[in-house]
Amino acid sequence: MSNQSSILKKNIFIIIVILSVFLFGFVKFNPLKNQTNFNKSAKDSISTETQDCIDCHINVTPGIVKDWESSRHSHVIVKDALLKSALQKRVSAENVPDGLQDHIVGCYECHSRNIEKHKDSFEHFGYKINVIVTPNDCAVCHPVEVLQYEKSKKANAYNNLMGNPVYHLLVNTINGLKKIKNDKIISENPGDVTLNESCLGCHGTVVQVVGNDTVHSSLGDVVVPKLSNWPNQGVGRINPDSSKGSCTACHTRHGFSIEVARKPYTCSQCHLEPDVPAWEIYRESKHGNIFFSKSNEWNMNDVPWVVGKDFQAPTCAACHNSLLTSPDGTVIAERNHDFGARLWVRIFGLIYSHPQPKSGNTTIILNQDNLPLPTTFNDKLADKYLIDFKEKTRRMDIMESICKSCHSTNWTENHFAHLDSVVIQTDEMIKSATQLVGEAWEKGVEDKTNPFDEEIEKMWIEQWLFYANTMRYSAAMTGAPDYQAFKHGWWDMSKNLDQMKNTIKLKTMLKNYNNK
Amino acid sequence: MSNQSSILKKNIFIIIVILSVFLFGFVKFNPLKNQTNFNKSAKDSISTETQDCIDCHINVTPGIVKDWESSRHSHVIVKDALLKSALQKRVSAENVPDGLQDHIVGCYECHSRNIEKHKDSFEHFGYKINVIVTPNDCAVCHPVEVLQYEKSKKANAYNNLMGNPVYHLLVNTINGLKKIKNDKIISENPGDVTLNESCLGCHGTVVQVVGNDTVHSSLGDVVVPKLSNWPNQGVGRINPDSSKGSCTACHTRHGFSIEVARKPYTCSQCHLEPDVPAWEIYRESKHGNIFFSKSNEWNMNDVPWVVGKDFQAPTCAACHNSLLTSPDGTVIAERNHDFGARLWVRIFGLIYSHPQPKSGNTTIILNQDNLPLPTTFNDKLADKYLIDFKEKTRRMDIMESICKSCHSTNWTENHFAHLDSVVIQTDEMIKSATQLVGEAWEKGVEDKTNPFDEEIEKMWIEQWLFYANTMRYSAAMTGAPDYQAFKHGWWDMSKNLDQMKNTIKLKTMLKNYNNK
Amino acid sequence: MSNQSSILKKNIFIIIVILSVFLFGFVKFNPLKNQTNFNKSAKDSISTETQDCIDCHINVTPGIVKDWESSRHSHVIVKDALLKSALQKRVSAENVPDGLQDHIVGCYECHSRNIEKHKDSFEHFGYKINVIVTPNDCAVCHPVEVLQYEKSKKANAYNNLMGNPVYHLLVNTINGLKKIKNDKIISENPGDVTLNESCLGCHGTVVQVVGNDTVHSSLGDVVVPKLSNWPNQGVGRINPDSSKGSCTACHTRHGFSIEVARKPYTCSQCHLEPDVPAWEIYRESKHGNIFFSKSNEWNMNDVPWVVGKDFQAPTCAACHNSLLTSPDGTVIAERNHDFGARLWVRIFGLIYSHPQPKSGNTTIILNQDNLPLPTTFNDKLADKYLIDFKEKTRRMDIMESICKSCHSTNWTENHFAHLDSVVIQTDEMIKSATQLVGEAWEKGVEDKTNPFDEEIEKMWIEQWLFYANTMRYSAAMTGAPDYQAFKHGWWDMSKNLDQMKNTIKLKTMLKNYNNK
Repeated sequence: MSNQSSILKKNIFIIIVILSVFLFGFVKFNPLKNQTNFNKSAKDSISTETQDCIDCHINVTPGIVKDWESSRHSHVIVKDALLKSALQKRVSAENVPDGLQDHIVGCYECHSRNIEKHKDSFEHFGYKINVIVTPNDCAVCHPVEVLQYEKSKKANAYNNLMGNPVYHLLVNTINGLKKIKNDKIISENPGDVTLNESCLGCHGTVVQVVGNDTVHSSLGDVVVPKLSNWPNQGVGRINPDSSKGSCTACHTRHGFSIEVARKPYTCSQCHLEPDVPAWEIYRESKHGNIFFSKSNEWNMNDVPWVVGKDFQAPTCAACHNSLLTSPDGTVIAERNHDFGARLWVRIFGLIYSHPQPKSGNTTIILNQDNLPLPTTFNDKLADKYLIDFKEKTRRMDIMESICKSCHSTNWTENHFAHLDSVVIQTDEMIKSATQLVGEAWEKGVEDKTNPFDEEIEKMWIEQWLFYANTMRYSAAMTGAPDYQAFKHGWWDMSKNLDQMKNTIKLKTMLKNYNNK
Repeated sequence: MSNQSSILKKNIFIIIVILSVFLFGFVKFNPLKNQTNFNKSAKDSISTETQDCIDCHINVTPGIVKDWESSRHSHVIVKDALLKSALQKRVSAENVPDGLQDHIVGCYECHSRNIEKHKDSFEHFGYKINVIVTPNDCAVCHPVEVLQYEKSKKANAYNNLMGNPVYHLLVNTINGLKKIKNDKIISENPGDVTLNESCLGCHGTVVQVVGNDTVHSSLGDVVVPKLSNWPNQGVGRINPDSSKGSCTACHTRHGFSIEVARKPYTCSQCHLEPDVPAWEIYRESKHGNIFFSKSNEWNMNDVPWVVGKDFQAPTCAACHNSLLTSPDGTVIAERNHDFGARLWVRIFGLIYSHPQPKSGNTTIILNQDNLPLPTTFNDKLADKYLIDFKEKTRRMDIMESICKSCHSTNWTENHFAHLDSVVIQTDEMIKSATQLVGEAWEKGVEDKTNPFDEEIEKMWIEQWLFYANTMRYSAAMTGAPDYQAFKHGWWDMSKNLDQMKNTIKLKTMLKNYNNK
Repeated sequence: MSNQSSILKKNIFIIIVILSVFLFGFVKFNPLKNQTNFNKSAKDSISTETQDCIDCHINVTPGIVKDWESSRHSHVIVKDALLKSALQKRVSAENVPDGLQDHIVGCYECHSRNIEKHKDSFEHFGYKINVIVTPNDCAVCHPVEVLQYEKSKKANAYNNLMGNPVYHLLVNTINGLKKIKNDKIISENPGDVTLNESCLGCHGTVVQVVGNDTVHSSLGDVVVPKLSNWPNQGVGRINPDSSKGSCTACHTRHGFSIEVARKPYTCSQCHLEPDVPAWEIYRESKHGNIFFSKSNEWNMNDVPWVVGKDFQAPTCAACHNSLLTSPDGTVIAERNHDFGARLWVRIFGLIYSHPQPKSGNTTIILNQDNLPLPTTFNDKLADKYLIDFKEKTRRMDIMESICKSCHSTNWTENHFAHLDSVVIQTDEMIKSATQLVGEAWEKGVEDKTNPFDEEIEKMWIEQWLFYANTMRYSAAMTGAPDYQAFKHGWWDMSKNLDQMKNTIKLKTMLKNYNNK
């Protein structure tokens, strides 16, 4: 009997060993492992307040509750997150307020932060909460990222556009409703909604509390703050607690998935053709080809993100802000949420390329013509507001070290030499266009007062804002050569000059003919 | 011995228990479970006729046979499909003809329906079958969907275009072959193939039997009906049995996969820029970002489709026609194959926006100028053919209830208020363009007789057909703000007015100059 | 005891059987099976030389080492690859040099080939290696593919562009830096970098060794060849060993994955709108819809590639070059790396469509006007350089046999009849544009000397290079009908003629007015 029992035990032992191997294998290879796998101890660690939220909202707004359930926030107790090694840590705070440590991060943990600063706070079934969770609230656990972000041009994207009189004029000129009066096209100033839906959709709006709304629900009437300039997830949004930015621009609610932020689809929400064709060019580049073909086999979630092991071609995030290491743990690039921090030359959005501005707030820049622009219309740099050669070299070194994870030094240096050349050529092509628009002004066929509102002026804008940007992006991403040839590249730049010249001639004839 | 035998039994029992757990786990987590898993009883339930088809066609056209093998049609016996609960049912028929009940749905089950109505029926190795399976045939099992579809603008897409003299003129003007004769551009009327390949590729052709073809095969000569205006999968195709529509426009042959129909790639076949940029705008929207980043982890197959549990961001189908429930089984929106049934405002394809037409057949509309258009050229509504305020509200409520699965009431209402504003602004911008084209006609530089065939007229068309549509789509989908700024948005609308005005001036000078 | 032992054995036997079934199931259904699963015997078969490379480069360039580790090259010993059956063989060599047989294919196996022919060879830590692995090196194992490729227009893409004086003029006209001098737009000749970044990015550069570079590394200074016109992966690259082409254009380093080459993202690197919109049209076609919706369930790796079983809709590779069989092993189409080998009509890049050229080197063609073009400006064919009717039919038969794997004969023949019609119509629309540009030359408003550099001439170029190509591609791929309507289709073709005509009138008036 004891023998038999021992046999049974042995067999069970064998079975257990085999099963362990299997289970290990299954867990290891289970492609769904990143999905909702509600961790029991995590589930027990929901705060009472968050549980109260969920009890109603699982029926009222099931989509966001389920999205959150699939998130890391719903799976990890804060104190465990704090214990990770420096490289693996996703939470940059050294410590967090007492109430937070023992819980997972749920509705209440985020929506109840800094109530006193939030004009959008309100009483909701016995709890005081805020409608909008802002960078200042996220900073409780992620202070380093928020501090970095605050320095970026992105955080200042609202004011850099609307607080700069030159750009503000461009915005109003484009978005103003046009009516025909007395045989002329008259432009009105665009209203708030118009701006929210166009420029400020990406740049961010000023969200304000403008009263209360009563919502009729199955639980009776619910009074909530009424927000204006909302919904909006622009990168430079001004929030009701006066903070700047919207983490959800990239870390989409309520999954807040690092995977989503690392994939290029996130960046494509704003960085697309014709003015900022980063997305289209990445998509057609060699790197994009590899991403779209193979990324289903990659690990888009791990921290740190290991070059070669986790992924074999960079996405936008890899080059521009993620923490990257080599397989042996050597840091290739530190994480940085100031998205310009690895960049030396600014290749889009302005008339000419120029060294990156020192400050994320670009409204402080004054060029030699006393305009708040980094160059004059004739391409003279506003030097003192722009980074110097040493800083340019420092940043280029960071970027090159990323390239060199896969490419040789010769390859990398030639690549950036090509970019330099394309930047110079495009600036020259813009200078030719600027000469032509100057000719139009001089001949009196268009009027310089507003440099953005007439036909030849608009051709000039397209030269720098569409075509030059496109060519430089294509050079920067070493791919999609058609974007330097026929797709808003040399073809369009050259043709545009011809059309500017011919339009000047026709308008001059028209002016003379009518004056006779 | 008996002891030992009992030990063996126990062990086997343990092994079986463990294996069951494993098998359960594997089936549950197997990401491939939706793929070809030929159900044994289903395989036994192939009809003799279908087996006969397969025996040849597995060699003759292996692609479609294998595609069908991966389908739900090949896995489910009809009578089992009929037993599903109301919410889970994919077959809307209460009952089906006797011969169908006990079989899976194979070649013969579909291609042998309603032979008497089919001009494309023919004898094929002893069987009488039809070349084209039409909505009327699908209605044997899916009558509710077919009835809904028949009411839609989609089902009427052929006649709404070709049977409306205004649109027919537009179609002929665009697609006509142009020759230069006596110093003028002369347009011929487009032939059938030209129309099939362009407009009717989406709208649908009139497929007709025009004789027989003899196909030389390894089994000897096979005589088959010769079809004209074929191949075509347009949504409003007129079939050889006189039915309207093509289910395969969205439910691609021969997998007929609900997953494919729910993914945005299906809609992208026709709804793309520059005239109907739904696909491009969805792709760059927040919802699109989430779909492309995460949908590999979603369940795109289940019926009903559960918000939050099955998917975390909507595709086109989720908002426009799928049966949606919350995780507790509450119905959020009923399935509807009249794709306009949840829409209140029509934002594309016509000169101005307007309330949705009451009838899917829009050729019955007559405006105040006696044109078959929902508005006059000056934006007066043909009221009595369009839905009223009450119906608009009812439809908006359905759509809002879908939004509110994830978004707050304030968020949702502001979103649609923004859409309203953009609709008004774009209509105003079209009115300005209409004033300008009117000026061109008045000054005699272009001729009103055909309002679609000259330079300024074409600029006017682009104002409403390209740019206004783009801006409204972007507002409707709360994303991709560049489509309201630089990508066929305000930029193009404003620039277009400038160019229209300047072209009028130049053409006027040309007219005067040549008259001197 | 022996009994018990026997029970134990039996149980273990049972467990092993069960586990085998499981393991089989897991391996069979494991969706990750194509990923890094380092084969032990393969790992043991790394050559000493390659191991030496890896020991440093795993730290220096971890990305490419890990990419290679995921490749088939790193998993298969060459002699095993040689043993595969004819249909399954991926290595077309009958035999390979002795040193290669017993190893997997690593760094040294490729980078040490044909040193004597390589101007880019250098001493590197005791090994003589080449920077660039060329088609001539790949031919050691893949000779048939390289021989086929050498005959293609792709392999000749550099010279077909730069060695043809007509095209060379077009290239220089587009890419030349334009300056405004004495009231005129003056064009300089483009430099090497400009050409590398635009046209030659796809066509290929002439890569040359121009000296040495010293790279500072953690292991001391490393001297490497300095290459000009590099980096480049153009299909017609001229390599430092004088060979033509770059296998990595499609078989991306260092995974060299057949999966990547078979997916449409690879082709999209060069074949995109506005001039070669194959990618965009495929994406919006029915085939593209199915690919993007379902390909995550397909087998993109197997050789041969079995229609229906492995995939249910074609990618670019399926129709244009892959070895395809039916499920019963019948060959549907042979593999061919001359990408034009299955094509009969050339539908893009030239003024008019025409039969495919006999030779991949198209610079040998001379038309009746003694220009190196396949047609005259008035569409007369340079017959003797183009394939004849018999060869056209032979190629069309191959393509049709691929279509017929899924489609009926009637469907397939109608499809290609539609393509024929669209080809004729687009050629006619180009003839009308050619008549207009002729009128501009005749009237002296533009100058024929360079037929590519003025406004009306550029409109003419867009007629054939952008719009006609787009329409023909859409017809060829039976989908995306909007590309024949509004998206660079009839709309643009028709509007373009109007604008050409009006521009002639305005320029004529300008000429007369200024001459007064």
